[in-house]
Amino acid sequence: MSNTSEDNITVRFVTENDKEGWQRLWKSYQDFYEVSFPDDLDDFNFGRFLDPNIKMWAAVAVESSSEKIIGMINFFNHMTTWDFKDKIYINDLYVDENSRVKGAGGKLIQFVYDEADKLGTPSVYWCTDESNHRAQLLYVKVGYKAPKILYKRKGY
Amino acid sequence: MSNTSEDNITVRFVTENDKEGWQRLWKSYQDFYEVSFPDDLDDFNFGRFLDPNIKMWAAVAVESSSEKIIGMINFFNHMTTWDFKDKIYINDLYVDENSRVKGAGGKLIQFVYDEADKLGTPSVYWCTDESNHRAQLLYVKVGYKAPKILYKRKGY
Amino acid sequence: MSNTSEDNITVRFVTENDKEGWQRLWKSYQDFYEVSFPDDLDDFNFGRFLDPNIKMWAAVAVESSSEKIIGMINFFNHMTTWDFKDKIYINDLYVDENSRVKGAGGKLIQFVYDEADKLGTPSVYWCTDESNHRAQLLYVKVGYKAPKILYKRKGY
Amino acid sequence: MSNTSEDNITVRFVTENDKEGWQRLWKSYQDFYEVSFPDDLDDFNFGRFLDPNIKMWAAVAVESSSEKIIGMINFFNHMTTWDFKDKIYINDLYVDENSRVKGAGGKLIQFVYDEADKLGTPSVYWCTDESNHRAQLLYVKVGYKAPKILYKRKGY
Repeated sequence: MSNTSEDNITVRFVTENDKEGWQRLWKSYQDFYEVSFPDDLDDFNFGRFLDPNIKMWAAVAVESSSEKIIGMINFFNHMTTWDFKDKIYINDLYVDENSRVKGAGGKLIQFVYDEADKLGTPSVYWCTDESNHRAQLLYVKVGYKAPKILYKRKGY
Repeated sequence: MSNTSEDNITVRFVTENDKEGWQRLWKSYQDFYEVSFPDDLDDFNFGRFLDPNIKMWAAVAVESSSEKIIGMINFFNHMTTWDFKDKIYINDLYVDENSRVKGAGGKLIQFVYDEADKLGTPSVYWCTDESNHRAQLLYVKVGYKAPKILYKRKGY
Repeated sequence: MSNTSEDNITVRFVTENDKEGWQRLWKSYQDFYEVSFPDDLDDFNFGRFLDPNIKMWAAVAVESSSEKIIGMINFFNHMTTWDFKDKIYINDLYVDENSRVKGAGGKLIQFVYDEADKLGTPSVYWCTDESNHRAQLLYVKVGYKAPKILYKRKGY
Repeated sequence: MSNTSEDNITVRFVTENDKEGWQRLWKSYQDFYEVSFPDDLDDFNFGRFLDPNIKMWAAVAVESSSEKIIGMINFFNHMTTWDFKDKIYINDLYVDENSRVKGAGGKLIQFVYDEADKLGTPSVYWCTDESNHRAQLLYVKVGYKAPKILYKRKGY
């Protein structure tokens, strides 16, 4: 068996046919964050991903050999007062537990960087729980920690 | 003279007439953050604040007696995959050095909360430098610190 | 009345006569941290402060005009594997609520720096709650935040 | 070959014979932290570890089959104003790169917990760089993150 396992993964935008595969990861992702969204939020999101007029996208990491979807990344565009150009926020990133050592996470983030460049909005950022050290092992390689504190309105 | 100085401050959306007052604070704010934006970014932002079709707004805190603009808050709407409803991000908050003890900061944030409620997008959040303790003395009263770390793409 | 209020404060090591004044602040300090120590811990600590063979000390900030103790700082020496010289840890710092704007906190810390230098153990450090922004307004002036996370054994 | 590799590791206090093995790890540890201590600090530390009158200790993790030292932990006792009982601070923890997946880190920390209990000073704590996510993957299992910020005197 080849040991260059990173060659087995490709990343592409979702299509209609990916909804089930994306949904499976989206549910595992909710379990990880101990949240529970209604199913029609899945539909709403997927509709936005496929709508060319809405600047929200999802990409999936696919195991080439099996065609199985093993990772997802959801991201969208938003304005900023600090620049003429908008920014890209990575809202969600999740890779199948069993597929964690194949570099899918890094490939998904790189896909977003590449798309952000094509869109002319190369500034990409995201958040993670301060206790998520596994994720941060990747994040420090592909990005850097900003010296910022996030505040939220009470109750939100 | 009355010592209920909070009564001297009203908060309202910017109008065309506020551009100079807003710009003065916007420049002091840049000095505080040690950044320097081009003047046409000021114009671009102010245009967006006044455009009813763009969900980016600015409000100012006005000292009722002098009609002087002593504080500004810039905020905008963006999507989220975690909800049908959008969120409101407070991009900038700045109060004149000399006017810091009059509660303008808290009033500006409350104005955004009220507007966010009217818009049906009550989830408001913002960031601050982890070293900005003065600001955080206010933020812990009107909000709470989320246990999140912010990561950015290298070079951005 | 003079407005150079910092001249009204002197800092010195505790003596036996200071026990009551120190204890009053030590109790307010416990209230602030929402802890409650037994009274014999006060006695144990004060005994250690006065014992020339034990490298634990306390100093108080005294309002010269009234001779009132308005602030306390407790500190001790400990080893380190990173140096031949020991380090000084500031365990407690507390200034009376009503006396907060007279620079007592900074003077207390400077006293520890000076004593640490005399002892040949100039490396001084301390901790604070991440939410204690008032204290950190002072700390960033007299020290710097180390990029460290503190971990404790569960249950301690 | 057995795959219960955790059985291959025992943890014990250092003896004179361990100095070379401990030193090898101590040097790798300095490389990791990008510091460089003089050799006589090694001697000073090792002397303190072996001196029954000095409350500074070192333990090593030994691969039973090869008798090779693959990990070290250095810890010491210090006072606190918050308790009659002293505390134990873990100053250094380092496990050989090649031996990282055998549970040596967790075993070394557990050894310190057990010794701390025997000494009647069960409160154990330590620090790590906020960017050391690999270490924190272990630390969150054996301990918890305290909501504290560490401040140091400028220049130290």
